[in-house]
Amino acid sequence: MEDLVAEVLQGSVRAMARLITLVENEDSRALQIMGAIYPHTGKAYVLGITGSPGTGKSTLTDKITTILREREQTVGVIAVDPSSPFTGGALLGDRIRMQRSSGDAEVFIRSMATRGNLGGLARTTADVVKIMDAFGKDWVIVETVGVGQDEVEIAKTADTTIVVLAPGLGDTIQSMKAGVMEIADLYVVNKADRLGADELLSEINVRVEQDFQIKKTAWQAPVLKTIAVENQGTESLVEAIERHRSFLRESGKLRKNRREKTRQETLALLKDEISRNVLEKVLGNGRFDALIDDIVAHKKDPYTSVQEIVRTIFPEE
Amino acid sequence: MEDLVAEVLQGSVRAMARLITLVENEDSRALQIMGAIYPHTGKAYVLGITGSPGTGKSTLTDKITTILREREQTVGVIAVDPSSPFTGGALLGDRIRMQRSSGDAEVFIRSMATRGNLGGLARTTADVVKIMDAFGKDWVIVETVGVGQDEVEIAKTADTTIVVLAPGLGDTIQSMKAGVMEIADLYVVNKADRLGADELLSEINVRVEQDFQIKKTAWQAPVLKTIAVENQGTESLVEAIERHRSFLRESGKLRKNRREKTRQETLALLKDEISRNVLEKVLGNGRFDALIDDIVAHKKDPYTSVQEIVRTIFPEE
Repeated sequence: MEDLVAEVLQGSVRAMARLITLVENEDSRALQIMGAIYPHTGKAYVLGITGSPGTGKSTLTDKITTILREREQTVGVIAVDPSSPFTGGALLGDRIRMQRSSGDAEVFIRSMATRGNLGGLARTTADVVKIMDAFGKDWVIVETVGVGQDEVEIAKTADTTIVVLAPGLGDTIQSMKAGVMEIADLYVVNKADRLGADELLSEINVRVEQDFQIKKTAWQAPVLKTIAVENQGTESLVEAIERHRSFLRESGKLRKNRREKTRQETLALLKDEISRNVLEKVLGNGRFDALIDDIVAHKKDPYTSVQEIVRTIFPEE
Repeated sequence: MEDLVAEVLQGSVRAMARLITLVENEDSRALQIMGAIYPHTGKAYVLGITGSPGTGKSTLTDKITTILREREQTVGVIAVDPSSPFTGGALLGDRIRMQRSSGDAEVFIRSMATRGNLGGLARTTADVVKIMDAFGKDWVIVETVGVGQDEVEIAKTADTTIVVLAPGLGDTIQSMKAGVMEIADLYVVNKADRLGADELLSEINVRVEQDFQIKKTAWQAPVLKTIAVENQGTESLVEAIERHRSFLRESGKLRKNRREKTRQETLALLKDEISRNVLEKVLGNGRFDALIDDIVAHKKDPYTSVQEIVRTIFPEE
């Protein structure tokens, strides 16, 4: 296992792919691996790209990757896919469209399935970002399908988050879920040659302006137009990303945000590990199922029962 | 506090509203209250109604409520709203449209804000369902805005879940998040007089049929058409709900599903309470912040640190 970590640090793509698989499968050695990886992290810049299906996120990711590569930056891409069998086809199409940059040996692309466990996915995504970071990638791009609370969680992994919209999808700021305005550092209206692009653009501008007036934040999210398939607006987008990066660095926010991310990640990890231990050690041997039987039969209630269990773990002084 | 619970059980609407507020505010007495409420639960039938904004869920909820009232059933409604200030206006509109049934003293309607903490919201929603159940409501309708993983979680509170779609919203099965197919017991194409309704209907039918062929489930989700504002198709919808309810009862699935819900809820509650205790008792007095400082400085890593904390709580035998 130590060999595998050492190989990743020395730049073995094969070792990196194996480590990611171990972490993704929640292998029992994952904590140990990540403990060995952690000291080598903190150098990569993490870019989040999120938006509804059909907005052209994958093409945009591809173009951004190509521009970063031209600037001699190394790039890792994590594409988070929903696991629904019905969207599988469409997503495969997306993956194929990304082949331009994936033909480049310096670009490592990893797709991840959700498997229905989003808490777990957010944690795994954060771990995979760290593995790519330790490997030596200058940039890690996390692309999430759809805009929802789950994606908001995953987006928190990123230093800069781009929210992508496209005209004609019924995809307006108003239809977006709560929390999206909070994570967007940059908005992109992609497929800007389509009908309704200007309306969508001005709608977003109004919302962003309102939000900015209310919150008086130091950074006002710019709203950009792109036609990713024609590579239009993509250079300006990378410039805007760089401006946001500079802003984060110079304002001290990069450090502050990363501290908060570390706090959240550590807390989530702690909760997961404690829960796992509770189930194994406190409620093992069918004891939990017996309790549930009593609760279902209304012989016990969940609230008092939980308090009793908690008191066995944390006795009152 | 015991008086308040007794008053709820005796049918005081005012006491119920106060208890819900206590639970919603995560009052320290909430566990005790819910422990006293629990023995009186299990009688109400819980209906979940979910779908994107603009599909007409609130109007549909209103019409279903009116039909149930005509059948001399008592109804409680929980409307889960996103907390975004930008959707506030639209939601207020929805609330006003529900006034027809809310003028009925036997219908208790409660709006709940998300406040960004969805895990907490799922738990609070489950508690409010129990309070309405103990109060004596025959039906509790939980209406959630949007279709995402978070709503999927909340929908798990329901015995029967209706997924509402409407034409012209770019709102297709394909755009739905993974997990939606798994929770839908009934599909409704509302605003069925609009352009694209038949296409949407046949698209859903194809998906449902595919899903049914793959999974060979005992229940195939029917796909219904409604025009809720004109009260068209709503009687048939209530009949379909009743058919699903009979199916659940006769197949033993109602009992099985409720057991699983109880298990999930108890587990979530246990995790929450343990996490709270860990933060207070193990990591109190700024110890957690000091640890995060060390992790940010790369003096420690989160993975090893978490394992160390867990070992202090659960010493190895």
